[in-house]
Amino acid sequence: VTDVAVIGATGYPGVETVRLLASHPHFRLAYVGSHGQAGQRLGSVFPHLGPLGELVMGSDDPAAVARHAQLAFVSRPAGASLDYVPALCALGVKVVDFGADFRLKDPDAYRRFYKTEHTAPDWLERAVYGLAEVHRARIAAAVLVANPGCYPTAAVLALWPALAQGLLEPDDIIIDAKSGVSGKPRTPALDGMFCEADENLVPYNLAGRHRHTPEIEQELSAIAGVPVHVSFNPHVVPMTRGLLCTCYARLREPVSEAAAMDLYARWYAETPFVSVLPGGALPQTKFVLGSNACHVAVRVDGRRLIALAALDNLVKGAAGAAIQNANLAMGLPETAGLPLIGLYP
Amino acid sequence: VTDVAVIGATGYPGVETVRLLASHPHFRLAYVGSHGQAGQRLGSVFPHLGPLGELVMGSDDPAAVARHAQLAFVSRPAGASLDYVPALCALGVKVVDFGADFRLKDPDAYRRFYKTEHTAPDWLERAVYGLAEVHRARIAAAVLVANPGCYPTAAVLALWPALAQGLLEPDDIIIDAKSGVSGKPRTPALDGMFCEADENLVPYNLAGRHRHTPEIEQELSAIAGVPVHVSFNPHVVPMTRGLLCTCYARLREPVSEAAAMDLYARWYAETPFVSVLPGGALPQTKFVLGSNACHVAVRVDGRRLIALAALDNLVKGAAGAAIQNANLAMGLPETAGLPLIGLYP
Amino acid sequence: VTDVAVIGATGYPGVETVRLLASHPHFRLAYVGSHGQAGQRLGSVFPHLGPLGELVMGSDDPAAVARHAQLAFVSRPAGASLDYVPALCALGVKVVDFGADFRLKDPDAYRRFYKTEHTAPDWLERAVYGLAEVHRARIAAAVLVANPGCYPTAAVLALWPALAQGLLEPDDIIIDAKSGVSGKPRTPALDGMFCEADENLVPYNLAGRHRHTPEIEQELSAIAGVPVHVSFNPHVVPMTRGLLCTCYARLREPVSEAAAMDLYARWYAETPFVSVLPGGALPQTKFVLGSNACHVAVRVDGRRLIALAALDNLVKGAAGAAIQNANLAMGLPETAGLPLIGLYP
Amino acid sequence: VTDVAVIGATGYPGVETVRLLASHPHFRLAYVGSHGQAGQRLGSVFPHLGPLGELVMGSDDPAAVARHAQLAFVSRPAGASLDYVPALCALGVKVVDFGADFRLKDPDAYRRFYKTEHTAPDWLERAVYGLAEVHRARIAAAVLVANPGCYPTAAVLALWPALAQGLLEPDDIIIDAKSGVSGKPRTPALDGMFCEADENLVPYNLAGRHRHTPEIEQELSAIAGVPVHVSFNPHVVPMTRGLLCTCYARLREPVSEAAAMDLYARWYAETPFVSVLPGGALPQTKFVLGSNACHVAVRVDGRRLIALAALDNLVKGAAGAAIQNANLAMGLPETAGLPLIGLYP
Repeated sequence: VTDVAVIGATGYPGVETVRLLASHPHFRLAYVGSHGQAGQRLGSVFPHLGPLGELVMGSDDPAAVARHAQLAFVSRPAGASLDYVPALCALGVKVVDFGADFRLKDPDAYRRFYKTEHTAPDWLERAVYGLAEVHRARIAAAVLVANPGCYPTAAVLALWPALAQGLLEPDDIIIDAKSGVSGKPRTPALDGMFCEADENLVPYNLAGRHRHTPEIEQELSAIAGVPVHVSFNPHVVPMTRGLLCTCYARLREPVSEAAAMDLYARWYAETPFVSVLPGGALPQTKFVLGSNACHVAVRVDGRRLIALAALDNLVKGAAGAAIQNANLAMGLPETAGLPLIGLYP
Repeated sequence: VTDVAVIGATGYPGVETVRLLASHPHFRLAYVGSHGQAGQRLGSVFPHLGPLGELVMGSDDPAAVARHAQLAFVSRPAGASLDYVPALCALGVKVVDFGADFRLKDPDAYRRFYKTEHTAPDWLERAVYGLAEVHRARIAAAVLVANPGCYPTAAVLALWPALAQGLLEPDDIIIDAKSGVSGKPRTPALDGMFCEADENLVPYNLAGRHRHTPEIEQELSAIAGVPVHVSFNPHVVPMTRGLLCTCYARLREPVSEAAAMDLYARWYAETPFVSVLPGGALPQTKFVLGSNACHVAVRVDGRRLIALAALDNLVKGAAGAAIQNANLAMGLPETAGLPLIGLYP
Repeated sequence: VTDVAVIGATGYPGVETVRLLASHPHFRLAYVGSHGQAGQRLGSVFPHLGPLGELVMGSDDPAAVARHAQLAFVSRPAGASLDYVPALCALGVKVVDFGADFRLKDPDAYRRFYKTEHTAPDWLERAVYGLAEVHRARIAAAVLVANPGCYPTAAVLALWPALAQGLLEPDDIIIDAKSGVSGKPRTPALDGMFCEADENLVPYNLAGRHRHTPEIEQELSAIAGVPVHVSFNPHVVPMTRGLLCTCYARLREPVSEAAAMDLYARWYAETPFVSVLPGGALPQTKFVLGSNACHVAVRVDGRRLIALAALDNLVKGAAGAAIQNANLAMGLPETAGLPLIGLYP
Repeated sequence: VTDVAVIGATGYPGVETVRLLASHPHFRLAYVGSHGQAGQRLGSVFPHLGPLGELVMGSDDPAAVARHAQLAFVSRPAGASLDYVPALCALGVKVVDFGADFRLKDPDAYRRFYKTEHTAPDWLERAVYGLAEVHRARIAAAVLVANPGCYPTAAVLALWPALAQGLLEPDDIIIDAKSGVSGKPRTPALDGMFCEADENLVPYNLAGRHRHTPEIEQELSAIAGVPVHVSFNPHVVPMTRGLLCTCYARLREPVSEAAAMDLYARWYAETPFVSVLPGGALPQTKFVLGSNACHVAVRVDGRRLIALAALDNLVKGAAGAAIQNANLAMGLPETAGLPLIGLYP
């Protein structure tokens, strides 16, 4: 059994990690750290946690964390991990970082999208981008895993087979993304209020303004072997959890729908968490609610490939992926402690 | 045409009043005042207002309001109307006040529930409690109408016929109330966030702790002619609008369900906005969504009467009732400009 | 005052027409016809209708309709208007038909998508496609108006300015559409059940399989003056009302975002129901809930134009558009009786 | 490892049982039987089940079930278990029955509420009512466990401590119950449609008309040792899962709120799934979403006790309770395979 810590447990990815760790066979939640709420019982913030609520949150001081845990799941605001995570790693703690500070290999892209100078650029190369399906081997050897964003996870898993096979034009890809409201932080804000988000559909940060754009392009470019440019356009949907990317890409050569579907089915035949629904069924976010599954489908419309991926943004899009990465980093079975069946209905 | 003002237009009751005034045949929205957002276009806060969004909000200074309007709908935080509303009235402006500052006749009850000394106790007697169905004549002569709370409106309309007829024990009444989330203020707060309120059912302020308790008891006591005590227990339901009170009261003498249903049907046969559904149908909040209607029903279970009332908390529970009151106060038809048919589905 | 009839009042578009007619200054709802529920009070199906519920539904027999109404709003299943609507017209009744039977000018396309031979092809030319913004003059002279589908209305209004100005490649247009559940018929079916649709996001009929595809292409081709092909891909979103089309189109020549936004703002400066939100705000479906407004916005992402339109699928996407068409067909002001301000929140 | 069967797997309680069995350490899902869909893959009905979807449903023939399983979870319509379940038991299969056919000890009450003569009255005494917290010992020895209804589970757990201690008048108890929509069967019906249930609050079967009334009275009477009569009044709330009972009961003698809270905290200090939230927090249904927990709280309002219980109607209100009962019946730890932490947010 490995002792692990969750730092920043009072946000949605953090508390979801706590939930999943509660039934993990090899990880023991040995420490919960908080920046602002140290000293409080976890249950005072989250009454749903039952016995786990008895845990008292400690500080997020790296030394304290290192005394209790061999691996830490870290969730901090953008920029706040730049110094913190390397400090933890220096103390021998492996880190799965939920934030974006170590996802982009290019410090210029980081500066442009996060309006901050990257102060630990040497760690950018050491950090491994934690999309387990793509980077499994490197994650197994990593000290610092940069857990992917929810949108990039879905977009990359939707496009990976076609792009890896060279079927797509690299500069004609549109990602129309739809997410539940829990993609926003657990901080009161008008646009996250029930009365504003309920019965509403809200496009935002269109045309590449969203911070996940460079992350998607970095990963797709690596897959394609050439620079890929995408038009990434997210929308908020009135549901708590769930994320669907509908991706539109121009085919370099004509491909039949049957051939595309066959490619995808074979590509994901062995991946434990990513699957193509049988019978050509299309993904629905509710099929993966609360599980670490990602459902993928593909269609062909003339010279255009339509690829879809659905996942739970807090599980495969955050906490589940983090535990999947931690499993790999600690030499455990990739699937340990991770639910495959969603909550339905 | 009467020029009217809406003060505090950026909250939900205020903006709902703006919506309803847009199609009012006798009122012209001549002024919109805001405490914190004077100088801004209304449309910059509320893009849904269309051409009405061109209105520029002015200050909430009483003199400015009095220059533009004969009647003002005032929505301010608890306590903030104590001096403000009398100042407006002194300038000759009739006021319909959305807040609670002039609802309770008993300054002690006000102090106990609002933790503030009432500084305009002489106005308590002059103010008329604006439940039009009960106080129609007095509202027509009023300078200051205290618009009722959403819960009291439903609870009183549910219990009025039985209590007025002397059917009920005055000290054995339970009100189990359920409201949509828009009963909360339009101010970011954790418990109003989509991810917290969605797919959730939340009891709160049980056992008489809610501020609407003394208001309900005041009105029911006046109807009964003896002191009435209630157990008022509200819950938040995951929907934006809608409110249902299920009231349980002990019958003094046995009454058949048919007789109770007949009493209610006759009682509300002529009220334009309150009605008993034919055929014994039970109220559903969606039947009154967006309309000024209140649907009432009654059942008998042994020695207990069960009375229900459903309304839209922002219309009959706030803005619609306010316009109904303003209609009466200005000598207009009570129904002018008020929708009777809800938005369905 | 014109006497009008609603045929097929027990579906969502029909009952929404009833709601809007209730406050129409020039139309009187003189007849309500139903195929299967003749003889019942309208209120026995729809308790929310208040006094209007007293209307007793008659048969949908054309002669009966013609005795009572000069104009009929007809809502029947696909194929069931082919003979019915011409029969009504032959009796001198103007018709606004909610269905698809007279929308497509090409009987072959009709056969392909509706699996039925068109039995009144001569009426295809006489019928006017009822998108008022585009075909205003012809609608004013029409006997039969084919009310547009909800998706085509949004898609065409989103793309119209750019396509009419020749800015777009006609064969590289993607429409990613998202609709609330009330786009489905009011007939019990598993995929429309609350437990299946709630907290779920469901793509369906992708890659041109949806019946609105030929309708969109017909209208866009007429606007462009050349054949337009689209990739139309709808999704169901967990909300009752609301529809958003996010359209992606390749620009023939580079256009700046500012120029595109300026074109759209000027294009829709005078249309009463279609507007571009000021300050570059993006449409949200909640801004138009319950109103006949359609909010449009445009962005540029490299060589791609992104055009969005949001509307309420039951108002501007159905009943509101039908009344707008009826207004034109009867020589009334286009805006008569139609709400411009949505229900918010 | 015990081989178990799920009969009636295509309803919500059945498929939820399948989900929970997937991570059960001692039960193996060896057989899935269906009345109407034998021969189909489970995944063709439920795409969310992942690898479990490969199970092919067999018939619900008792002999077939008995060949594969030692214990069966049976979910059939009211009346359809009367002969079926005894036949299964006769073949040596232990049964946990989700239906109501063996819950009521009084065949007259069964006839009155289910409009059917009970054809296996001898089994009524042998069947054990499966509320594990109350009947733990008898369940451990049972051949047939009648799994409780969702409402009775919450109502009884809310009232048990006070009633067992003799604090309450037995004939003055009101249960105001609120449930998510998944309490209805997975069969298309108008009142379960998204557009009808969304943003709606619907009271139904008030004043003791609901079939759970005699079940609640039977269990409360056994606890009190005297006949208990309740006024049971359910409402449907616009959410998929979750159930809250707010119970109002008259105190025989004055009891302080502190004393009542203390009683409840001690009463449920050792029960693994029922707990009183610390610090006097009130239950919210979201705290128990997807878990087998039931959260209880108590308040005192004058001479009235207010007791609340929240649970997930498909877990502690159905499938979770069934597995808890099966654990007991097979001599396993009561908590085996059952989640204690809900899905939040």
